[in-house]
Amino acid sequence: MKRRDEPPLRVGVVGFEGYAGAELVGLLSAHGDVEPVLFERDLGKGSAPSRGRRQHSVKARRAARRALADPFAATDRLERRVWTAESLRSADLALVFLATPTESSLELAPAALDADVRVIDLSGAFRLASAASHETWYGAPHPRPDLLAAAVYGLPELHRQAIPDSLLVANPGCYATAASLALQPAAAAGVIDRRAGVVCDAKSGLTGAGKKPSPYTHFCSVAENVSAYGFFQHRHVPEILAATGLEERELSFVTQLVPLRRGLQTAIYFRLEPRLGWPELAAIYDRAYGQEPFVRCYPQGSFPNLTQTAGTNRCALGFEVDEATGRALVLATLDNLIKGAAGQAVQNMNLMLGRPETRGLAG
Amino acid sequence: MKRRDEPPLRVGVVGFEGYAGAELVGLLSAHGDVEPVLFERDLGKGSAPSRGRRQHSVKARRAARRALADPFAATDRLERRVWTAESLRSADLALVFLATPTESSLELAPAALDADVRVIDLSGAFRLASAASHETWYGAPHPRPDLLAAAVYGLPELHRQAIPDSLLVANPGCYATAASLALQPAAAAGVIDRRAGVVCDAKSGLTGAGKKPSPYTHFCSVAENVSAYGFFQHRHVPEILAATGLEERELSFVTQLVPLRRGLQTAIYFRLEPRLGWPELAAIYDRAYGQEPFVRCYPQGSFPNLTQTAGTNRCALGFEVDEATGRALVLATLDNLIKGAAGQAVQNMNLMLGRPETRGLAG
Amino acid sequence: MKRRDEPPLRVGVVGFEGYAGAELVGLLSAHGDVEPVLFERDLGKGSAPSRGRRQHSVKARRAARRALADPFAATDRLERRVWTAESLRSADLALVFLATPTESSLELAPAALDADVRVIDLSGAFRLASAASHETWYGAPHPRPDLLAAAVYGLPELHRQAIPDSLLVANPGCYATAASLALQPAAAAGVIDRRAGVVCDAKSGLTGAGKKPSPYTHFCSVAENVSAYGFFQHRHVPEILAATGLEERELSFVTQLVPLRRGLQTAIYFRLEPRLGWPELAAIYDRAYGQEPFVRCYPQGSFPNLTQTAGTNRCALGFEVDEATGRALVLATLDNLIKGAAGQAVQNMNLMLGRPETRGLAG
Amino acid sequence: MKRRDEPPLRVGVVGFEGYAGAELVGLLSAHGDVEPVLFERDLGKGSAPSRGRRQHSVKARRAARRALADPFAATDRLERRVWTAESLRSADLALVFLATPTESSLELAPAALDADVRVIDLSGAFRLASAASHETWYGAPHPRPDLLAAAVYGLPELHRQAIPDSLLVANPGCYATAASLALQPAAAAGVIDRRAGVVCDAKSGLTGAGKKPSPYTHFCSVAENVSAYGFFQHRHVPEILAATGLEERELSFVTQLVPLRRGLQTAIYFRLEPRLGWPELAAIYDRAYGQEPFVRCYPQGSFPNLTQTAGTNRCALGFEVDEATGRALVLATLDNLIKGAAGQAVQNMNLMLGRPETRGLAG
Repeated sequence: MKRRDEPPLRVGVVGFEGYAGAELVGLLSAHGDVEPVLFERDLGKGSAPSRGRRQHSVKARRAARRALADPFAATDRLERRVWTAESLRSADLALVFLATPTESSLELAPAALDADVRVIDLSGAFRLASAASHETWYGAPHPRPDLLAAAVYGLPELHRQAIPDSLLVANPGCYATAASLALQPAAAAGVIDRRAGVVCDAKSGLTGAGKKPSPYTHFCSVAENVSAYGFFQHRHVPEILAATGLEERELSFVTQLVPLRRGLQTAIYFRLEPRLGWPELAAIYDRAYGQEPFVRCYPQGSFPNLTQTAGTNRCALGFEVDEATGRALVLATLDNLIKGAAGQAVQNMNLMLGRPETRGLAG
Repeated sequence: MKRRDEPPLRVGVVGFEGYAGAELVGLLSAHGDVEPVLFERDLGKGSAPSRGRRQHSVKARRAARRALADPFAATDRLERRVWTAESLRSADLALVFLATPTESSLELAPAALDADVRVIDLSGAFRLASAASHETWYGAPHPRPDLLAAAVYGLPELHRQAIPDSLLVANPGCYATAASLALQPAAAAGVIDRRAGVVCDAKSGLTGAGKKPSPYTHFCSVAENVSAYGFFQHRHVPEILAATGLEERELSFVTQLVPLRRGLQTAIYFRLEPRLGWPELAAIYDRAYGQEPFVRCYPQGSFPNLTQTAGTNRCALGFEVDEATGRALVLATLDNLIKGAAGQAVQNMNLMLGRPETRGLAG
Repeated sequence: MKRRDEPPLRVGVVGFEGYAGAELVGLLSAHGDVEPVLFERDLGKGSAPSRGRRQHSVKARRAARRALADPFAATDRLERRVWTAESLRSADLALVFLATPTESSLELAPAALDADVRVIDLSGAFRLASAASHETWYGAPHPRPDLLAAAVYGLPELHRQAIPDSLLVANPGCYATAASLALQPAAAAGVIDRRAGVVCDAKSGLTGAGKKPSPYTHFCSVAENVSAYGFFQHRHVPEILAATGLEERELSFVTQLVPLRRGLQTAIYFRLEPRLGWPELAAIYDRAYGQEPFVRCYPQGSFPNLTQTAGTNRCALGFEVDEATGRALVLATLDNLIKGAAGQAVQNMNLMLGRPETRGLAG
Repeated sequence: MKRRDEPPLRVGVVGFEGYAGAELVGLLSAHGDVEPVLFERDLGKGSAPSRGRRQHSVKARRAARRALADPFAATDRLERRVWTAESLRSADLALVFLATPTESSLELAPAALDADVRVIDLSGAFRLASAASHETWYGAPHPRPDLLAAAVYGLPELHRQAIPDSLLVANPGCYATAASLALQPAAAAGVIDRRAGVVCDAKSGLTGAGKKPSPYTHFCSVAENVSAYGFFQHRHVPEILAATGLEERELSFVTQLVPLRRGLQTAIYFRLEPRLGWPELAAIYDRAYGQEPFVRCYPQGSFPNLTQTAGTNRCALGFEVDEATGRALVLATLDNLIKGAAGQAVQNMNLMLGRPETRGLAG
């Protein structure tokens, strides 16, 4: 794929050790138009994962290393740099991806922009509309309200126009991507009974919980189990409200861990007002997404499951209307590491670099 | 455990090859007061499982037999009889369990009652209140409306008084047990906004889907997947309506398969009217279940997961109130093979035989 | 990838509904140089999977269809034909893949060759060296000993020279690929104590057991279980003997199912004679595979696991020498659907069509 | 079960938070003749698990607590004491179980014996025959060679006579239990070709790896994976050598993690000398184990899998003889937390307290 005339554009990646970052490096490596350059943070500071590992006994660590380390990891063949203002500037980057925790992104994004490097941030650092909202949901004042205001929310299906010229794109959360795509057309069409409200019952695989070892990511805590862990207060909620125009008092959102590695499903329930049948509801979504390369609306009687979106940048939507109650179910599935993170980041990159939006992404 | 003075009572089991039946035999074998007697159907008729196996190649069958057959299965040490009117009568049974499909139970239960043997039926054959409702949900007229009317719905927490003297107990469905226990107190207390309605998002492990091999129980269809398969029309819905007094137009019920063997979780959402806080809502459930040996109400900020009810006859309930929306979440978990099937059947047996209700059951 | 000057070559696929066939269609669709054409067998004959499904109740079937069917399956966008001599001839194929059971391939391969279409067969039909051996291991006389003799065993690392000009390539079995690559260099170097013999303890995920529903592929039979099912008599054994020059009395081969979807690991044990240390043993493998794009020899103290080869066409090898016993362990992992089936078939196709051997394959 | 005349004996448990300790408390609680008393170590010292948790962010910790904590845990209803010489002495214990790491047991066992409390230790602290061997395998000199010499290795099938009067029983390792039971009869009968040696390929579920979170117990590292992690040097090896009389140069032992929670399988390969057929080999094992309540020898053509021993104190053995190579396979399965740890400890307790050996244990 790199046998084109022009050389590939260089794009930076910080946080390539995490699940989303590793997926991103994989997608970029196979993309064809770009070449990933890996940035490591200063080791002196110590990242959370390495602190986490430090506590384990030498023996357990060695066993883990033998059991999990991949001496032929694709990342080992890529260019690596230490993150400094200077290395960033000299790296000749078209843009940089931050697959870092929110607190790190709050620090790294301004530095990149200062070095004239555009940013796609996969964390929650720049997703919310206002500093006040950020402080409410993230528990700390936002250090750069100016950048928060300038950032574009990178959900191409809803904000495609603003992305190409943006300097800072805030890549949406995985839950928010599924719920926003599943809700926005109905909300915009005014067919949701907003007094009765909306329920989102969301289930995620364990890559969504991050790579850091903890009691609740231990295999024995997860296998043969389902754990509800987020009750009406997940940080992705304000993103969904902003994307759909719903109000906080209308949306109830619960998140659960299911025993699988990747994949996210959201079952969304709301009363239809006015009463619509399946064809009318489906028509609303077809109008919204008929031309979208990465949204698939399932036909009547058919529903997406996780294996159908695994490995793709697709969000799949299935619909059911309960005539007895007048309630609709919109079922959304996606791969939390792709359309929910790294794939959507590549989709945004394609838009920012003037490439075909689907390049390097399985639809 | 059988070192008591009186000899154990003999109880029959039909359908011991299935998941619920096998669990039932295990519970009965360890119970102490009873002794299970296994009844096999006439081989000439052919049961569904054996028809299913017949299609596979001899080689695959042999491999499966070697891989799965247990030459030391506990059932091999138990008394076995062929089901006939005569063998039933002569078996000196205190009662018989039917862990059979609905169609079989419709045929076997009358035969047992004719032989003066009381029945606990684990199928859907006698669960609904009226023949009309049965025909609607099961797609065929009920052959014995008289028995349907006489049957007692065996959810002890709601119908404890009627069970001891019943000749025919209809053991509730697994989904219905969880949802009914989770909804009934709030419904009875009149705190559900019935116009806004109730959403049940239920997830079950694969033992809930039965033992028969099919494309959708294949390991590769289930692992790394979540599949919604029942949309607003599950046969357990009328049981929930009857147990809670809700009406069909108020309840939306969706069932999903998650990649685990046993366990069932139901997330139930409804608007509180009047607006209640967590303490008021919890108090309603504490009043209902404070003395129940098999229902556990979790404290504020704590929620049950599947491993906490696995292997027990417990239904665990957790609560959350969303102040922004005025909506409550009631989260129920249970072991679908125990409180959802075999354990509840033993609980009913204890009541019918005048034993302590908790005997032989982990609470 | 199809933006090259020459149009893609058309390649046929029979048996695209199975796990290996579906994987193959995916690899071919993304390959760039080729375009898959799907061939369906005459429906009148009835394929095993559809017969299998037929037995299930209408309701279960419908649920399974809703739960598993993918209305946006990639195969739906590809050209489909019914398999006939005429359609095969007129399809203008560069070659055809048979991802069919052995009995079907025995019938289809001659038909394809008669129609002047080269064949890559993924079944066991043409893998063994002699008709006598085929009859011993497959339990029936080979109908076309002439084709069996003409077929080339498609393990490129061992038979690269013969593949390009072959009319009929027999793609190796998944177990055989791992064991042959893991054993051949040591066998050829004469460092295996053949009197003490060789033990292969092989574990496979469930895609290796095929898509047909059966009691032993049911999720509840597989999860939380390990089942040994092949004891010293697996049909892949003669392939390993032929590839390595070992004799039947020297090799003990056992296969086991582990609860995962894809991936195969083989632990191979043999005494070293003469006694070698790790460096000497590793040097033998480095010499054999140092230039191979799809074989990776792990450094000392490091061992491959399944996630490292998942999704790739790689066979990974790790080594350990037990000084106390003089025994070596060679641990091989691969993705049973890729290097163990579809990927290796594409690798063979690349050689047969004069393309770079690695095209379309992740190494 | 507690309706007997004599009051239950009090038995202490240290380390009840781990997987084996929790299983032990469950077995003791249901035993009938005994009553568990839980001992907590001084909080000032800090146990590894709590240090492990400390590193995680407050938020993740809170989520984990909500998701995993069981407010109705059985252990909460039991008597708890802080471990001190005084509390130990005053607790009126029949014996104490140490389900603690080796280093802790080395410290706690002498303290218990000083307080005149007999000990069943589940760690490796007192399993090996000599201080020299302990130092070799555990990497530190043994602090109490006198106790090491006095300790009895608690594998009842091999050392039943010495256990009742022992003051200190060293409960065997899980791998050692399976391999020793699978090898000892053949070794004692002199039918193993010791020059060709013995290969043990062992697979364990994740409870065998302990509860401490680490990169290699993370769900995403385990699911869809098999990881070999112990190569010829596992600490259970010297136990197997001592139990079977094999020498180090004869036994090669490899351990692997498979994606399941509980269960252990060992495939053991050796050449038969003299050549025996299946009946002769099986007869050796039948003679050894025909009267054993917790060892099951499978009939010809039948092999144990993990679900058959899950939840039981059984070790199941299957046999195959490969006529071509003269090699035998002995396949052993057990539940690593029961026969591999807590159940065997209860079996030892029964012997030490003069109770029927099988009491409280599923056979």
